[in-house]
Amino acid sequence: MCGIFAYCSYLCEKDRRHICEVLCNGLARLEYRGYDSAGIGIDGDSPDSPTILFKQVGKVASLRKLISQHASDADQSSNEAAASDAKEATNVGIVDMGKTFITQTSMAHTRWATHGQPSPLNCHPHTSDKTNEFSLVHNGIITNYKEIKLVLEKRGYTFHTDTDTEAVAVLCKYIYDSQPNKRLNFTDLIKAVIKELEGSFAFVFKSQHFPDEIVAARRGSPLLVGVKTDRKLKVDFVDVELPTADTTEKLSNDTENGGLLTVPGGNAEPKLRRSQSRAFLSEDGLPQPIEFFVASDASAVIEHTKRVLYLEDDDIAHISEGELHIHRLRKDDGLSSVRAIETLEIELAEIMKGQFDHFMQKEIYEQPESVVNTMRGRINFDSRTVTLGGLKAYLPVIRRCRRLLFVACGTSYHSCIAVRPVFEELTEIPVAVELASDFLDRKTPVFRDDVAIFVSQSGETADTILAMRYCLERGALCLGVVNTVGSTLSRESHAGIHINAGPEIGVASTKAYTSQYVALVMMALQLSDDSISKEERRQQIIDGLHEIPAQIKGVLMMDKALQQLAKETLAKEKSLLIMGRGYQFATCLEGALKIKEVSYMHSEGILAGELKHGPLALIDEHLPVIFIMTQDSLYPKVQSALAQVTARKGQPIIICNDDDTTISEQYRTIRVPLTVDCLQGLINVLPLQLLSYHLAIMNGVDVDFPRNLAKSVTVE
Amino acid sequence: MCGIFAYCSYLCEKDRRHICEVLCNGLARLEYRGYDSAGIGIDGDSPDSPTILFKQVGKVASLRKLISQHASDADQSSNEAAASDAKEATNVGIVDMGKTFITQTSMAHTRWATHGQPSPLNCHPHTSDKTNEFSLVHNGIITNYKEIKLVLEKRGYTFHTDTDTEAVAVLCKYIYDSQPNKRLNFTDLIKAVIKELEGSFAFVFKSQHFPDEIVAARRGSPLLVGVKTDRKLKVDFVDVELPTADTTEKLSNDTENGGLLTVPGGNAEPKLRRSQSRAFLSEDGLPQPIEFFVASDASAVIEHTKRVLYLEDDDIAHISEGELHIHRLRKDDGLSSVRAIETLEIELAEIMKGQFDHFMQKEIYEQPESVVNTMRGRINFDSRTVTLGGLKAYLPVIRRCRRLLFVACGTSYHSCIAVRPVFEELTEIPVAVELASDFLDRKTPVFRDDVAIFVSQSGETADTILAMRYCLERGALCLGVVNTVGSTLSRESHAGIHINAGPEIGVASTKAYTSQYVALVMMALQLSDDSISKEERRQQIIDGLHEIPAQIKGVLMMDKALQQLAKETLAKEKSLLIMGRGYQFATCLEGALKIKEVSYMHSEGILAGELKHGPLALIDEHLPVIFIMTQDSLYPKVQSALAQVTARKGQPIIICNDDDTTISEQYRTIRVPLTVDCLQGLINVLPLQLLSYHLAIMNGVDVDFPRNLAKSVTVE
Repeated sequence: MCGIFAYCSYLCEKDRRHICEVLCNGLARLEYRGYDSAGIGIDGDSPDSPTILFKQVGKVASLRKLISQHASDADQSSNEAAASDAKEATNVGIVDMGKTFITQTSMAHTRWATHGQPSPLNCHPHTSDKTNEFSLVHNGIITNYKEIKLVLEKRGYTFHTDTDTEAVAVLCKYIYDSQPNKRLNFTDLIKAVIKELEGSFAFVFKSQHFPDEIVAARRGSPLLVGVKTDRKLKVDFVDVELPTADTTEKLSNDTENGGLLTVPGGNAEPKLRRSQSRAFLSEDGLPQPIEFFVASDASAVIEHTKRVLYLEDDDIAHISEGELHIHRLRKDDGLSSVRAIETLEIELAEIMKGQFDHFMQKEIYEQPESVVNTMRGRINFDSRTVTLGGLKAYLPVIRRCRRLLFVACGTSYHSCIAVRPVFEELTEIPVAVELASDFLDRKTPVFRDDVAIFVSQSGETADTILAMRYCLERGALCLGVVNTVGSTLSRESHAGIHINAGPEIGVASTKAYTSQYVALVMMALQLSDDSISKEERRQQIIDGLHEIPAQIKGVLMMDKALQQLAKETLAKEKSLLIMGRGYQFATCLEGALKIKEVSYMHSEGILAGELKHGPLALIDEHLPVIFIMTQDSLYPKVQSALAQVTARKGQPIIICNDDDTTISEQYRTIRVPLTVDCLQGLINVLPLQLLSYHLAIMNGVDVDFPRNLAKSVTVE
Repeated sequence: MCGIFAYCSYLCEKDRRHICEVLCNGLARLEYRGYDSAGIGIDGDSPDSPTILFKQVGKVASLRKLISQHASDADQSSNEAAASDAKEATNVGIVDMGKTFITQTSMAHTRWATHGQPSPLNCHPHTSDKTNEFSLVHNGIITNYKEIKLVLEKRGYTFHTDTDTEAVAVLCKYIYDSQPNKRLNFTDLIKAVIKELEGSFAFVFKSQHFPDEIVAARRGSPLLVGVKTDRKLKVDFVDVELPTADTTEKLSNDTENGGLLTVPGGNAEPKLRRSQSRAFLSEDGLPQPIEFFVASDASAVIEHTKRVLYLEDDDIAHISEGELHIHRLRKDDGLSSVRAIETLEIELAEIMKGQFDHFMQKEIYEQPESVVNTMRGRINFDSRTVTLGGLKAYLPVIRRCRRLLFVACGTSYHSCIAVRPVFEELTEIPVAVELASDFLDRKTPVFRDDVAIFVSQSGETADTILAMRYCLERGALCLGVVNTVGSTLSRESHAGIHINAGPEIGVASTKAYTSQYVALVMMALQLSDDSISKEERRQQIIDGLHEIPAQIKGVLMMDKALQQLAKETLAKEKSLLIMGRGYQFATCLEGALKIKEVSYMHSEGILAGELKHGPLALIDEHLPVIFIMTQDSLYPKVQSALAQVTARKGQPIIICNDDDTTISEQYRTIRVPLTVDCLQGLINVLPLQLLSYHLAIMNGVDVDFPRNLAKSVTVE
């Protein structure tokens, strides 16, 4: 859940100021992945001087400030004092920002704490020892770090942080040190390290023993390499080098000695084919200037280059002397021996905030367009037909399946709940909706005649990816519903839908929810398009979808009134219940999650039908309650629930339709336009998104960076 | 969700004091069904004087006090002043408690408000007019009462309460009045009324036009008749009288005149076979003394008689002249033409509190025995086999099914969630768990090859019963898991398990949860007993079950420490999160529900795997969190979640195993014994039950009667 960024330049002269600038800009783009602390590691003044580290608690802005305090060419007198104050955060005093490098490697990290509280000590990059022989940045969790630490402590190594990452850094040094006579090369060393690790991770390694080299590796967490060169790349793919034999076997733990790491190599000489990767050969065979950017996602490299290569699990990428080589951790496992360099079509401008104060606000307001983009080219409103190209070939299989299994986390899970009734109605196939983590925990039975649908905005949500792999192993047809093109979920699923909502930066998902909702409704429509008895209902829903963008625009106009409502009735509260039933149960859950995420108010979505089985005990004249009571077939039942709450002196706020005249004037109401019952949730969630935004602002929360949360959860 | 009680005595001399005593005692037994107000209706001094009503807000004790204030033979001077204060609550001044009756009919009601706040005006019995021509008590909801009211208002009738029930009373009078020349008998009159009603209900009607008669009717809400006589009943069943034709057709609403109720009868003369019901004939043909008790459930009649007759939907029971006649609302619908009188085997002593302060506390402490009772005669611990007699014939069908569908509400829903993993593991059949109300709202697709399991303590939960009927219609095999023998669920399902936990009186379910859990685990064990590969696992679970009662006893010994913990850390808090995953997710949900129900603290169960998808934003140094972290395969993942909460300065309380040494001393812990992973939830829920109990006591809540809740939810 952290962001990783690394920058390697070869044969292009850059000064240290430029390098720090590139690193900090890269981190700023990744900040949505985590932002409790940040750090960078850059080359020292000479090849044998230690890596210089800057680490700071807080967002990237604080890190930039720390770096500028250490810059030698700024106003010296004031800076030196400041630098001595901040000394403990770095390993150097004043740094010459004008120093230039022909070739250099550097790394950066923005953190989201999993082990150890945010502190300069726990910041990345982590190092193997005081002289920074090995330094690294890490995204993910090493689950066996305690065992590794224990073994290394017995060998006399010491640890200074609470993190799992430090164990990996020290392990690098231990394996390097243990064979002083026959040194491993950097790639083999990291291979040996990786083989010891359990958990999920993406790494970038740097070492004083291997100047101007970088090794990157991943398993479970995303990582890509951007390539920037003035010349056209000769070919669009990179060779993958497979070990001729599994020379570096898994090191055994000799439990008798309290665990003993044995070191690879020994008799079996690693035999790597050293081949010049074809992509990076210049026409005339001469070395050419080139820059590489390693990052957790494309938003951080897009300002430099659109040419990227996505790493796969167990790839070891080695960057050295202007070349990028991909090695596999283990012997040929059926993967292709070349890896394509892709060209991204994302626009940096899309990632910018525009006229809005926050990304979240911008994304709420983008919804009239983003739902249109989801539908564009897929619904013909004249002929009332839906065509999702990616699913076409699979429709017969899906229609014949035993069960539709939706798997997702967080907001994506709620969009699945929201569309479950319409799937059940239109397809008449049993539908199960599962939280990805619980689905995995329970080792849910999955069969070849199941169809599993995985929903994730980023396409990188760790639990959802693991759940997909679990289903793939069991032979189920796996479909992905994602926003991010080229993400793991979209690459590894059999087929799927891109929701095309555009980049979502705000940690609290808004436009992705409505676009997922629309995409899934379209899928249900297409699945039922062979049924004559559902024809009328389908056309009703398609007509409803046609109206939705204008209706969303209408609801967003109420923003001021909602701000007022938030201020008058909810801003001081600690708890909030949101109630509804049927199609609106998902809206309750999603509204409550939004309020939890950004305003830190303990809100909970309650199924109105369950009210009498417990939650009604909470109701009194003080507890704020929001009722979702738009007009569908369950309206009378929600009315009964409202009567019960009112009989107990509750003072609910009611989300109801424009023309609903049956609601007594004693209630505060939020009035929204009426649409088809199964689409009403698209409309009803909007006031809750806006309320959560305003509550957060009133509570002084930075809504784009709510505490403790990160945009995409790439660890289990 | 209210309790109904009626008392009819025939040829046995009783004074008014005795009658009031019987009514109040009956209500006290039914109080767990609702207790925001209570009322009784008794005969006046002469056959043509109005029915005397006493109504009081609050529990039955307040009603008793009100009655004694009006008693004429107590201390007059003080009482008359009190009586005038309380005048508005009854229609009389001072009542002669010594007045005796040879034959009388009377009714009583304890209310749980659905329409209209608790007030003397909204109390039952409701009447048709100021002179109480018709009076009635009602459990359930009339969904079309607004339409009925509208029509009657146009006819000049007036209404004085906010309730749906009053509309029914006035409707009685309207139909009676509309044919002054050809009066209907009481049964036909009520039939005409019932045919107008939509919703779910149980009624008892009384009228000055039909002295010494009572008509009772039900649809959806439970109702039974107890019979007490010195002589042996001649036969054990009652004749059911079917109308020869549907003479009383549904009255039409003439919308042109704003709705016009037309009245039955007309040309078609109702032709009823008037036959002496065989059961109540004495040997010598002479009238014999007899008493009838009509009640919502058996606990209210058990002190008088064990001979009861359960009414079915659309039964109209008429009690008059010492006889009980059952009529059907509509023509023969395939039901039997006799109805059995059953003998109950429940002991009144079982319903008493014993040494404990509250039923909830008593029931928590009963769990070592109640789980034994659930297993008794079903598990052979020597041969390690499970035999559930009721399911035996259905095992082949269940093993071949497409899907296991669990449907329940509230706590019963949580017991289904708790056993889902063990069902999935042992049977390898896909399992879906559904909230009954949502299941109905969504019109979930159900097929003939589905097996549906309905879980309800009372067996009378309205939503669960409706869901069962929905599945029965679609041809699924329906199994019931209930505590109450003879309940609707156990009568209408194909087969099932009685959990044998003994009567549960406390509104917050405790021992029913653990017994449901054990019963369902036994079911999973029996379903898999043909699998060799699961043999070892099955034996491990059966051995685990053997230890459970002693382990429960052990955990209950920690009561004092938990009380202390509640006092020191949680008593002042407003919010609480309970986190865990895998098998413990259900424990989190159930623990949170208990705390919500009885201590009114806003607690929420959170899946630890979802923490990072939103709820983590709530975590800071103030919000109390309970972690369930007992040792199973997910322990490392819960540890990670704990690390994340701690990294954000959370101060969790941890429920962990006795011998867990890895937990840092900084945490407060609740230590419980280790058992098999799939049974650990039985142990872990106990500290949460005890904590909720102590928190409630500290907050001054009457835990057996938490505000706004009733024991069994017999309305949708």
